[in-house]
Amino acid sequence: MKYIAQLTEGERINEIYLCRKKQSALTKAGKPYESLMLQDKTGTLDAKIWDPGSLGIDDFDELDYIAVTGDVTSFQGAYQLNIKRLRKAQQGEYLPEDYLPCSDKDVDLMYEELLGFIQSVRAPYLRQLLESFFVQEEGFAKKFKFHSAAKSVHHGFVGGLLEHTLGVTKNCDYFAQAYPMLDRDLLITAAIFHDIGKLSELSAFPRNDYTDEGQLLGHIMIGAEMVHDRAGEIPGFPEQLENELKHCILAHHGELEYGSPKKPALAEALALNLADNADARMETLRELFENSDGTSDWLGYSRIFESNIRRTGEI
Amino acid sequence: MKYIAQLTEGERINEIYLCRKKQSALTKAGKPYESLMLQDKTGTLDAKIWDPGSLGIDDFDELDYIAVTGDVTSFQGAYQLNIKRLRKAQQGEYLPEDYLPCSDKDVDLMYEELLGFIQSVRAPYLRQLLESFFVQEEGFAKKFKFHSAAKSVHHGFVGGLLEHTLGVTKNCDYFAQAYPMLDRDLLITAAIFHDIGKLSELSAFPRNDYTDEGQLLGHIMIGAEMVHDRAGEIPGFPEQLENELKHCILAHHGELEYGSPKKPALAEALALNLADNADARMETLRELFENSDGTSDWLGYSRIFESNIRRTGEI
Amino acid sequence: MKYIAQLTEGERINEIYLCRKKQSALTKAGKPYESLMLQDKTGTLDAKIWDPGSLGIDDFDELDYIAVTGDVTSFQGAYQLNIKRLRKAQQGEYLPEDYLPCSDKDVDLMYEELLGFIQSVRAPYLRQLLESFFVQEEGFAKKFKFHSAAKSVHHGFVGGLLEHTLGVTKNCDYFAQAYPMLDRDLLITAAIFHDIGKLSELSAFPRNDYTDEGQLLGHIMIGAEMVHDRAGEIPGFPEQLENELKHCILAHHGELEYGSPKKPALAEALALNLADNADARMETLRELFENSDGTSDWLGYSRIFESNIRRTGEI
Amino acid sequence: MKYIAQLTEGERINEIYLCRKKQSALTKAGKPYESLMLQDKTGTLDAKIWDPGSLGIDDFDELDYIAVTGDVTSFQGAYQLNIKRLRKAQQGEYLPEDYLPCSDKDVDLMYEELLGFIQSVRAPYLRQLLESFFVQEEGFAKKFKFHSAAKSVHHGFVGGLLEHTLGVTKNCDYFAQAYPMLDRDLLITAAIFHDIGKLSELSAFPRNDYTDEGQLLGHIMIGAEMVHDRAGEIPGFPEQLENELKHCILAHHGELEYGSPKKPALAEALALNLADNADARMETLRELFENSDGTSDWLGYSRIFESNIRRTGEI
Amino acid sequence: MKYIAQLTEGERINEIYLCRKKQSALTKAGKPYESLMLQDKTGTLDAKIWDPGSLGIDDFDELDYIAVTGDVTSFQGAYQLNIKRLRKAQQGEYLPEDYLPCSDKDVDLMYEELLGFIQSVRAPYLRQLLESFFVQEEGFAKKFKFHSAAKSVHHGFVGGLLEHTLGVTKNCDYFAQAYPMLDRDLLITAAIFHDIGKLSELSAFPRNDYTDEGQLLGHIMIGAEMVHDRAGEIPGFPEQLENELKHCILAHHGELEYGSPKKPALAEALALNLADNADARMETLRELFENSDGTSDWLGYSRIFESNIRRTGEI
Amino acid sequence: MKYIAQLTEGERINEIYLCRKKQSALTKAGKPYESLMLQDKTGTLDAKIWDPGSLGIDDFDELDYIAVTGDVTSFQGAYQLNIKRLRKAQQGEYLPEDYLPCSDKDVDLMYEELLGFIQSVRAPYLRQLLESFFVQEEGFAKKFKFHSAAKSVHHGFVGGLLEHTLGVTKNCDYFAQAYPMLDRDLLITAAIFHDIGKLSELSAFPRNDYTDEGQLLGHIMIGAEMVHDRAGEIPGFPEQLENELKHCILAHHGELEYGSPKKPALAEALALNLADNADARMETLRELFENSDGTSDWLGYSRIFESNIRRTGEI
Repeated sequence: MKYIAQLTEGERINEIYLCRKKQSALTKAGKPYESLMLQDKTGTLDAKIWDPGSLGIDDFDELDYIAVTGDVTSFQGAYQLNIKRLRKAQQGEYLPEDYLPCSDKDVDLMYEELLGFIQSVRAPYLRQLLESFFVQEEGFAKKFKFHSAAKSVHHGFVGGLLEHTLGVTKNCDYFAQAYPMLDRDLLITAAIFHDIGKLSELSAFPRNDYTDEGQLLGHIMIGAEMVHDRAGEIPGFPEQLENELKHCILAHHGELEYGSPKKPALAEALALNLADNADARMETLRELFENSDGTSDWLGYSRIFESNIRRTGEI
Repeated sequence: MKYIAQLTEGERINEIYLCRKKQSALTKAGKPYESLMLQDKTGTLDAKIWDPGSLGIDDFDELDYIAVTGDVTSFQGAYQLNIKRLRKAQQGEYLPEDYLPCSDKDVDLMYEELLGFIQSVRAPYLRQLLESFFVQEEGFAKKFKFHSAAKSVHHGFVGGLLEHTLGVTKNCDYFAQAYPMLDRDLLITAAIFHDIGKLSELSAFPRNDYTDEGQLLGHIMIGAEMVHDRAGEIPGFPEQLENELKHCILAHHGELEYGSPKKPALAEALALNLADNADARMETLRELFENSDGTSDWLGYSRIFESNIRRTGEI
Repeated sequence: MKYIAQLTEGERINEIYLCRKKQSALTKAGKPYESLMLQDKTGTLDAKIWDPGSLGIDDFDELDYIAVTGDVTSFQGAYQLNIKRLRKAQQGEYLPEDYLPCSDKDVDLMYEELLGFIQSVRAPYLRQLLESFFVQEEGFAKKFKFHSAAKSVHHGFVGGLLEHTLGVTKNCDYFAQAYPMLDRDLLITAAIFHDIGKLSELSAFPRNDYTDEGQLLGHIMIGAEMVHDRAGEIPGFPEQLENELKHCILAHHGELEYGSPKKPALAEALALNLADNADARMETLRELFENSDGTSDWLGYSRIFESNIRRTGEI
Repeated sequence: MKYIAQLTEGERINEIYLCRKKQSALTKAGKPYESLMLQDKTGTLDAKIWDPGSLGIDDFDELDYIAVTGDVTSFQGAYQLNIKRLRKAQQGEYLPEDYLPCSDKDVDLMYEELLGFIQSVRAPYLRQLLESFFVQEEGFAKKFKFHSAAKSVHHGFVGGLLEHTLGVTKNCDYFAQAYPMLDRDLLITAAIFHDIGKLSELSAFPRNDYTDEGQLLGHIMIGAEMVHDRAGEIPGFPEQLENELKHCILAHHGELEYGSPKKPALAEALALNLADNADARMETLRELFENSDGTSDWLGYSRIFESNIRRTGEI
Repeated sequence: MKYIAQLTEGERINEIYLCRKKQSALTKAGKPYESLMLQDKTGTLDAKIWDPGSLGIDDFDELDYIAVTGDVTSFQGAYQLNIKRLRKAQQGEYLPEDYLPCSDKDVDLMYEELLGFIQSVRAPYLRQLLESFFVQEEGFAKKFKFHSAAKSVHHGFVGGLLEHTLGVTKNCDYFAQAYPMLDRDLLITAAIFHDIGKLSELSAFPRNDYTDEGQLLGHIMIGAEMVHDRAGEIPGFPEQLENELKHCILAHHGELEYGSPKKPALAEALALNLADNADARMETLRELFENSDGTSDWLGYSRIFESNIRRTGEI
Repeated sequence: MKYIAQLTEGERINEIYLCRKKQSALTKAGKPYESLMLQDKTGTLDAKIWDPGSLGIDDFDELDYIAVTGDVTSFQGAYQLNIKRLRKAQQGEYLPEDYLPCSDKDVDLMYEELLGFIQSVRAPYLRQLLESFFVQEEGFAKKFKFHSAAKSVHHGFVGGLLEHTLGVTKNCDYFAQAYPMLDRDLLITAAIFHDIGKLSELSAFPRNDYTDEGQLLGHIMIGAEMVHDRAGEIPGFPEQLENELKHCILAHHGELEYGSPKKPALAEALALNLADNADARMETLRELFENSDGTSDWLGYSRIFESNIRRTGEI
């Protein structure tokens, strides 16, 4: 496929893109037209349909994948697509991965690795709780693999929730062997569930935006509720164990001002908070480096890190 | 009954007190004895059983109401009870109100007033949710009337949860008529439920201390979960309405650093936060004045109010 | 009258507007012209006088109401008025309310209500102090009714100071009956005077901007001084009462970092702070909703509330 | 005179001390006695009157200077005075300086120096305002020389207000020559007036404690009011100048959270804040060194300086 | 050996203890005596030499190991040793480990492990720098193995600096494999050096207290200086590499308010900060659990963790 | 010379400017050209070389002083220089002072004054240390006189480091006579060295930007290291004195959150912090006034001073 970043002025294209935004407007002369923002994984492109009612222009909605025919022009220093023909693309005609930011890593392999961690949990109730989501729930694996862990910031891409969850789980696994006082089963389970509320806090791609529920409750509360509801379906699930697990989820941001209603009171909650923080910060930094234009080692002041950031030189 | 504050040195008493604490110890000579802390609503009293195995001393536990016979002595400037005989008192022999700090107001009248507010809620799902707890749940009214709203600080007495809930609800009622943009039904419902999680966060009197669940989850999370579980039992309860109500509960502390995982995003959540804060602060101040010894108008520096506090003079 | 929001390109108008700003400039060709910003309550309009010295253009100043004749043109996507004739309008030709943001409520009714509260104050010195401003001082009522309570933020409109003062007073009235320890006379008086310093901190409409005195001293200090000076004119006004009243004014922002030089030390100062905060925040939120374009329930992140804000749904 | 620090067990004394505290009590046997705390500048002494009604014991009150005859005994490791005879001392029999903490410096010389600064102010209204207090007001000089600048912390001794005022004024004088943009007359005047409100915020020695007015209003507000009232008595005193001067007083703590209702907006207000802070901190440190027992160079953690503090070694 | 915790009243002992403190005093009768505090790893013991000049009492100093003969008595509820004979013990007569808090882990094995990490560093200058301290410097290994990492808080025991350094290094090693963008050589080197300044900030055991240099400069500055001085002795050590390494040391506390003069600007500095924080917090929690008396799962409010802390239950 | 601020449209100029920035670009037609930013002390000017390869255009680099011939045109409301001929200027052809912001004061006189302070230091090691930099080091005086004290903020001009250092030293001299407990020699030495690290933290003019070392270590650490290295070259320099001096440098920002790794623990460190802060803030304010356009006394909100700032009126 011809990616947006590869387009050149003057060429005629015939391609499928994701329609990110769609707005109706009037020309100065009072004639209606449509203004679109098209997207693929390499960037976005302004596009116009000057003749919305014409024969070749089918109906479509925002967030549809659309097959367009048109000419690449230039307007005020940026490219613009003048659309002549348009139809909704069928599933199968396109690969969503071409249109969305994606994890660099193999999503299926990561899910396998996560299942391995689940199988290493020996406490039966925790194991059952984990499997009820990750193994037994229809469609869960697919949804979990596709979700992002953020609207922007770190891991805001397809597979991001899985990649972050796995990163935190591995870090917790390291902690469990380094600090023997930790209960590995509780810690691994908490790590795997810690951001599960993001499945409802953020809508799925391509929208990947906060839901109404997400804004009102937040993924911490939603995640604790998901675990609570499911544990309630497992006969005999110990109440104290449910509370400890929910506590780890509630406290994983570490500080009240970061949205945790409780500070860590258990060693596992503290370890989860440290692991989550480490994975989030390292990935945030990685994305900062990745997105820099490379003209300078010093990347400029980062508000997140409250410092000018620099690549380390060759040693 | 003869209250602890009324005892004088040398008298023999025959009275029922609450046994707040109980510890076994050894005299210097190596002889075992029992050291107790007795309590009624006027204060506490140190007591000793020098002969724990003797005939007149029955078995009992901490937090039992016990009938004791003994002599009031003085040790290092404080009274001490030398217990000769002891037995567990039967329910009916004593009034818990004599042993616990209580609201100045009539608990039953306040509950009536609260039911009046419930009947003023016209939105059917909210009304049903309220009634399922306050009207239909067996034993709920009794438990709610007896509970405190805090371990110490404000409203830390029998009936305190009810008094505070009613105070907040009335303040919200005022807001609803003063600021017409507020949805009165949602606001009144949220006010009545806002601290319901305290029923599980704090154990009932006479213990009135944080429970394990309370420390791990906190009354905000517990309250939201109680509402969630009950709403799930009401067919057709709208998900958005449940989320709005839970949001009000989650956000009622107003700031993340005060333990709310979300800041108020709805007008009703903001109003609830303002009403809760006002009732809590006014009552905290009232208790400060009540507990001062009255020797000076200026009460000294209060850490809660970050100021020296003074009674207002006669005008 | 033809409001600015109703103008269309190409029409010739003959209307009175408020001249908010006036600047002399030179065209590229070096010819002098005048650039104005006109205002009415529906918005602002850029205007040009290309021929300042011509016959039909009379003298005028910034903040004058001016009668203009001219053509509506369009420049860089915005309307512009090309002024042909201009004269200062006479008082009586226009209604200031048409040109300034105004309270939705009836200003005279609100003042009546405030006078009712004043009459309810029974402590003679406080009553006398209140009446010396609100009843006896020539021109005070007119000035007080016309003033805003802010340059922007909440209650920044004609009648805003009165509306906010009344809102706070009513809330204090509620507190006085809900919490009997409060001295109602002191509290009501403090509520009515709490923002009186804004009469000098902000210049009157149409300017409605910080005065030199306002920036140097602030309305808290100015208000306390106004009360001090007037109390000094009332023979026998008790010094302690004056200090208590001034304390309420000084402390009404509640926190040192919000500009109060003292934290509340009296119950009435605390109640006033709670009432002021509640009225300010509820009105701020109301204005946020009112000014939103209505395209979405979620209004976006509000820096004041540190949260995305949303309208409550229909229940 | 025989100072408290010089007493030895067993001696009979006949001396005048300040009676700092006085309390009536009962012996275990139920006999009334008086318990006093006596004070001179070297320390305090516990004293008892076992026979309050006896012939040689005259009437007296707390904070009286009293002539006592009695025996020095020892009780629980501390000296105690057993008073046999007691009468109120007459003014003239004692020197207050012997009983109160005093400035090391000559109070009269310092006042002379301050008058010199006043004479250096050339702006007539400011000069007149200064002289109306420091030169013309009857009793002002005496009061100002005797006052402290604090209840405890820095300059909490007789002459402390004068010493601190002079220190700040000198520092401002340095600033005025170092930074020519400063208006020396305004700055010197503001420096001399900056803490004048302490005359009312703190009661005079020997009490030296916060007054009711002081707690309700604070010395910043009181000082601004004093300047306001006096300026009002000087015909033609320019309003803007009064506001600038009051602004300097209001802003001299530099930060809202330190009790200034306004941050410095004028260069002179900034300079005054810097000078005040420098003199206060240097003196606080000096008192810390002076009060240390000298056993170690490191004095231990100081909460004011948030650091362990050490004397500088010999270089 | 007979440990302090094992002593019983009335026995005569003949044992070596560490003399933690030594003070000369006078009895009430004016006779000189010596008051000592003796220490071993199980606790401390008050001791008296009532006849300091007698034959059997040799000269000795604070922090000497002393062989004492004496009787165990009881005074005000605590044991006291009445010393009859005393001499300084010779090195070899005692094991310092018996007298000081020690790491639970094998110090020599940990040092071996650390050397293994040093050998894994491939960048020649960094390797040389590490070896110059840990391998080549005479006496360094002994000193490093014996040092603590804190006066109190976490790792405040013999071997503590080594145990913490190794813990941080291992965590960094984990990060280096989990986040490939990290330069492992720089990160491992920085981890090993990060707290090296504690060798001078804290005096060695048994004193283990802040040195003058430590208080004036802090271990961060001292550590950077040690690395700077040593790098200056290695011909050709790249200046940029030295700066990166020093930056990691300077920034390892992560926040300015925790004493780092720079926030992390390099990925390795960030990783080191995360690893240091994780090891410090996990160990702090471990020590909290270890030092609790075990009567309750909830250990009470911890100021460090700003939460009540609880052991996790059996799962 | 013809300054940039004096250029008019249409003239041809022949002048030397500093080339601040240089970028290669392509016209829409694909033809390469050079885009420059020229600078003198009156401002900056956009310039283009449309024919980079032509005969009259010599080679040059960013930050070269270049002699240009060209025409002043106007583009989008700003002047632009169309360069026809260009060559690198020779040293001697231009005065750097014409191209860079400079101190208003005489740099040589200020250096003399600083040397006077150095000669007033009587402690031999400190005197020797000072002279080793300011008197004996080749090229040091020239470098120190030319350096700025900041990239922007206060004293960000040629001679700024010297001017600020002298201002702080004078203020410290005032403190030394006002507060006799201060050790003048240590204080004056610390004042002179306090910002010496800026010589490496910032590159010299015309670049005047943070260096790599500056960003990684900061001027506080660099300055302490410079003093450490030099003291190491002076035989017998007392270690304690070096530590005290380095402490003053480390602590001169006064607060950890301002980048000092230690809070002031010595009186001299505290005095230096106060002096540095005073000079920095007064100069910052002076520059604010200087850079204002003078249309209003109130300059608008200053984020540094957290206040609207105003010039003081004529008194």
